This record gives sequence, structure tokens and C-alpha cells, in this order.
Amino acid sequence: MRGALLYGPGDVRVEDRDDPTIVEPTDAILRVAAACVCGSDLWSWRGLMMNSDDPIPMGHEYVGVVEQIGADVKNIKVGDFVVGSFVASDNACEICQAGYQSHCIHQQPGAATGSQSQLVRVPLADGTLVATPGQPDPEIIPSLLTASDVLGTGWFAAVAAEVGPGKTVAVVGDGAVGLLGVLSAKQLGAERIIIFSRHADRQALAREFGATDIIEERGDEGVAKLKELTGGLGVHSTIEAVGTKESLMQAIQATRAGGHVGYVGIAHEPLPGEALFFSGVHFHGGPAPVRRFLPELIQLIWDRKINPGKVFDLEVSLEDTAEGYKAMDERRAIKALLRP
Amino acid sequence: MRGALLYGPGDVRVEDRDDPTIVEPTDAILRVAAACVCGSDLWSWRGLMMNSDDPIPMGHEYVGVVEQIGADVKNIKVGDFVVGSFVASDNACEICQAGYQSHCIHQQPGAATGSQSQLVRVPLADGTLVATPGQPDPEIIPSLLTASDVLGTGWFAAVAAEVGPGKTVAVVGDGAVGLLGVLSAKQLGAERIIIFSRHADRQALAREFGATDIIEERGDEGVAKLKELTGGLGVHSTIEAVGTKESLMQAIQATRAGGHVGYVGIAHEPLPGEALFFSGVHFHGGPAPVRRFLPELIQLIWDRKINPGKVFDLEVSLEDTAEGYKAMDERRAIKALLRP
Repeated sequence: MRGALLYGPGDVRVEDRDDPTIVEPTDAILRVAAACVCGSDLWSWRGLMMNSDDPIPMGHEYVGVVEQIGADVKNIKVGDFVVGSFVASDNACEICQAGYQSHCIHQQPGAATGSQSQLVRVPLADGTLVATPGQPDPEIIPSLLTASDVLGTGWFAAVAAEVGPGKTVAVVGDGAVGLLGVLSAKQLGAERIIIFSRHADRQALAREFGATDIIEERGDEGVAKLKELTGGLGVHSTIEAVGTKESLMQAIQATRAGGHVGYVGIAHEPLPGEALFFSGVHFHGGPAPVRRFLPELIQLIWDRKINPGKVFDLEVSLEDTAEGYKAMDERRAIKALLRP
Repeated sequence: MRGALLYGPGDVRVEDRDDPTIVEPTDAILRVAAACVCGSDLWSWRGLMMNSDDPIPMGHEYVGVVEQIGADVKNIKVGDFVVGSFVASDNACEICQAGYQSHCIHQQPGAATGSQSQLVRVPLADGTLVATPGQPDPEIIPSLLTASDVLGTGWFAAVAAEVGPGKTVAVVGDGAVGLLGVLSAKQLGAERIIIFSRHADRQALAREFGATDIIEERGDEGVAKLKELTGGLGVHSTIEAVGTKESLMQAIQATRAGGHVGYVGIAHEPLPGEALFFSGVHFHGGPAPVRRFLPELIQLIWDRKINPGKVFDLEVSLEDTAEGYKAMDERRAIKALLRP
């Protein structure tokens, strides 16, 4: 089969690779219908998280059709169209049952590692994959694909930020996760959604997804503007979808005491301890337990109630995966869809 | 009147000071029945937060009898025995109404600054003070005093950690706040309460307050021990009552994904961003909105349901305030009560 491999910074290549096979009886093999490039893939592509001398199979977002299942797989059948989380989980342990499948005690991060390919092996298939109600129309495949990570992550951020009816929400980050955070907040009933963005195309999509206000200023200026819009108090809920010290600080300062910050941008840097302490906000996030939300998100997409696939503003064939990475890195594209 | 002043590191003196007077029509003047030394007073006493060249009036925990009220005070009468929070709040703004009085938009931190004295001025008296159901028996005055900060803070940490029936709780810190965190967790229905402590006297008090397990190990060893006790998963709720990088790390590691850390030790240092992110815990705390809990805590004490005053293992006259500080600094005392 063909699949993407990262050789080093800025060097991703699509090459012939061995077809994946069933290793554990709980595995499934999927024929990938669509994959995509994640913001976190760019970390590796930029050389920031590459800790291997061998080429790395890339991709962890996927939808596809089940080609083969291990002897112990019960919930998923050959021929099912499925969406899976980027973390493989048994969906049975105490942590999974509490809704934190991304921390499953049997978790396998990078579950479907190498999903930027024609075929992919998914461990713990019964706990990780959710079948769609039938074979999907091609038009909703991009939206179903978002559920496997980027939408699931934006949705989790909104849930972690306790977004709900009557709430005013801020969104820090106008990448695909932030934009789908807007969509999630709207769907969860937020009354007002304020996004920080200075890119016209992203602002337009944010408004389409439900943003009511846009702030172009950043840092203290941006916070001052937001305070003006919220009677000096700050918002009830903030979705933080970047993960830098600056963006986390902006999220904390934007939120009123007793409010909630849902953060899903990987926080590589130390957090401002004193600022967080004296802010009095609730702070929750981390790797999204996408599996918790998959049934609900699939249904919303199936019923055409949401159209998160709109974040894909670039579509390339699997062979042109490198162009997807480059376009996202140069911010020419919000998110790139790959067709195997 | 006589009152305590901090002149510099390790140098607290009780001297003649001017009697406080009504400055704003919302003020009240109290005759202090009992005051005490807070762990945070020790920060100043050690020279860590002293940013004034003039001697600083010390103390922010207090109970007493109302001697005088401003023209606008309506809820509190002269002669009332009252307990107040260490932050003055109007208890009326949107933030107060949401239960975050320590972040009141009209807040006055160090409300009753200089409560280690015979008389103290409390701003925003109506929003800050709560009268007891009558004149208290002397035996419960120490317990009522704890409600003004140390118990209110431990209680908030337990609430922030979402302690409740069926929950397993860890407590990091065996100072007065941590110990009253144990009492709070017990009162809130926790099933199991594990405290990290290596001091026999504190262990004994922790057990009396409701601790079921004690771990003497710290750091990774302590976490390993706790994991053993919790089926490898960690606890549901952790009360963090220290505020150092190490103690925060211990609290995060002790808590299962999806669990809650309530932290009330002032976090002066940067937080471990990546550890917090990948832990998947909820993180909430900061300066405790003690006012939220005062009516409930006063009633529990009044009804002899809790006896938090036991954290005072040293009682000195106001004139001997310096000994109170020294005994706490040298860890000879858990907490020192001052009798004006």
C-alpha cells in the first residue's frame, strides 16, 4: 500500500509500505476513505517532537471501511464504515466509563498511527471505532473525518469549558480546532461567542459556525476589548486551542472568576502559576476523549445538523500529502484533507 | 489599642496603635475576640512578600463583637458576634452571586487588615460579615475563628476538588489547611481520605478529622504508594494545600484522569504545563470564597457537628504574638491562636 512517512523536518514522503496486518485479536484493519493533517502533525514536521531515527508513519485521524477484524472483535463488522478516535481505548475500564477514554488504562496513543495511507491497523477496535448508521454519502465524509480528532477536540474543549445555554464564550485560536470550538459552542447553546482572529477567511468561517463577535487585538489589548464586551467581567467559558504561554494567559485573563477554561492546545511550556491561582477559573483539558462524543457527533453529522467538514479548505490526493503539510505550515490552508 | 506590626523579616511587634474608625459608611468596627496566625502571614514574616518600608499591620482572620457600624450597614448590628472572610466583598455583584466573593468586583483583599489587634475595621460589613445565631460559648470561639479563613479555605479546596459521597480523596499538605481539608472531605461524605504526612502529631489529628490512610513517602515514591492504594488509578479528588511546584506535581500525579484537584496553596511558581495537560485532571482553586461557606460552616460549628478549632495547638496572648509566629515557623505549632 501507499503511505506517508516523515523522514525529517519538512520532509514527508508517500511511499510503498507493507500492508498492515492483524497483530492482536482485538485489532481491525481499515481501508482509509479519507485522512487529514493535524496541527500536531506539524509539530513533528517542524522537527519539534521527532525522536526517532527511522522514518515515522504519519497521521492519526481517519474514517474508512473495515476490511478485516481480529478474532475477538464483536461490535464492528467487515464492511462497516467507521470513525475512530486518535487514541485506542477499550471503552470498558473505569477511566473510560467515566468518559476519559483518551486516558484508558489500556490506551494506545497514536492508535491508528500511519492513517495517512491506504490501509491502517486500529488496535482495540471494539472500544475505539464507532460505525456510522450506514454507508455515508460522499459529501459528509469530510465531516465524519473531523469527528475523529479536530471536531472531537473542539467539542471536548467546549464541554470542558462548561459551555451551555446563556453562556458567553471566548475562543482563543482560529485554527481548525478553534473554529470547530465555535461550532461546538453554538451547538451546545452558547448565547454569545467571541473569537480572537485576525484572518479574514477564518473570521468568515467563524461567523458561519456561530461566532457573534470577533476581536482582532491580541494580548492585553485583546483582553481589554473582551472585557469591554462583557461588562468588565470576562466570559463564562473560554476555549483555548493553541497551547502557548501567551494564548493560555489570554484565555485565563479572558475568563471571569468561577468561569471555566477548556484547553486542548498541547501546553509545552510552564503555565503562569500565580496568574492562574489568582484568576479563580476552572481549568480542564488535555488530550480529548473523542470516543465519548463520537456517537453524538456522528449522529449530528448524519442528520446534517452540523457541517464541520467546512474546515477543510484544501483537498489533495494521498500522493500529494507533502503539499498538505506545506500549505498548513504556511497558513495557506486551515486544514488539508487527504484522499487515498 | 494594641496591635501587631511587622517591621521586617522575623520582627513582629505588638505596639500601641490608633483605634480604627469608620471610614466608609459601609464599614464596621469589631472588638476582636480571637485572631490567629495564617500560613500566608509567615510568607511576609520570612520576608518573601514584604514590599513596604513602613511597618505592616498583620492578620486577616478574626471573630469578634461589632462595636460600631457605618450609616449604610443594615444586616449587622452593634453587639452582634460575627465571623468574616479575609476578603471584603459586597456579596451582591454578579461574581459574588456566582459564589466567588473572593473575586468580588468591589473586593478589598486583606479586608480586615491588622486583625491581630484589639479592634479592627471591616469594609463592606454587610457583604463580608456573618453574625452567629447568638453569643457563642467560649469553647467554640476557636472553631468559629477557623471559619474566617483556614477552615473556609480547606472547605473550598474540598468543594473545588468535587469531594462527595463515594469519592476517594488525597490531601497534599498536613498544615492547618490540609488538616481542615481532611475534616471538610469527611463532612462532605468522602469514602476514603488519604493524607501525605510524616509528622506523628499531625497524623493523629488527621485521623481524628477523618483520614483513613496516611502516606509518609513523598514525590514519586509517595505517588507510587497512593496508586497502590487506589487500584493503580489514583484518587478522584485531591486537596492541594501547599503551593510549591513539588506539591502541585504530587497532587496532579495522585489524581486520576477526569478527577479534580482543588488547590489553595498560593502557587508562586510556574506550573508543570505538560504534566497538567496530559494528566486530564480538572484544576480549580485560588483564594477561597470563604463568604460563600460561612453560614453553613457557622451552623455546623454551632451545632457541635465539627470541631475545627482543634488545629490550634498553641494559644498565646496578643502581647506574645511574636511567639506564635516563631512556633509556627519552626513547626512547633500547627496554628497559633491569639487572645487580645
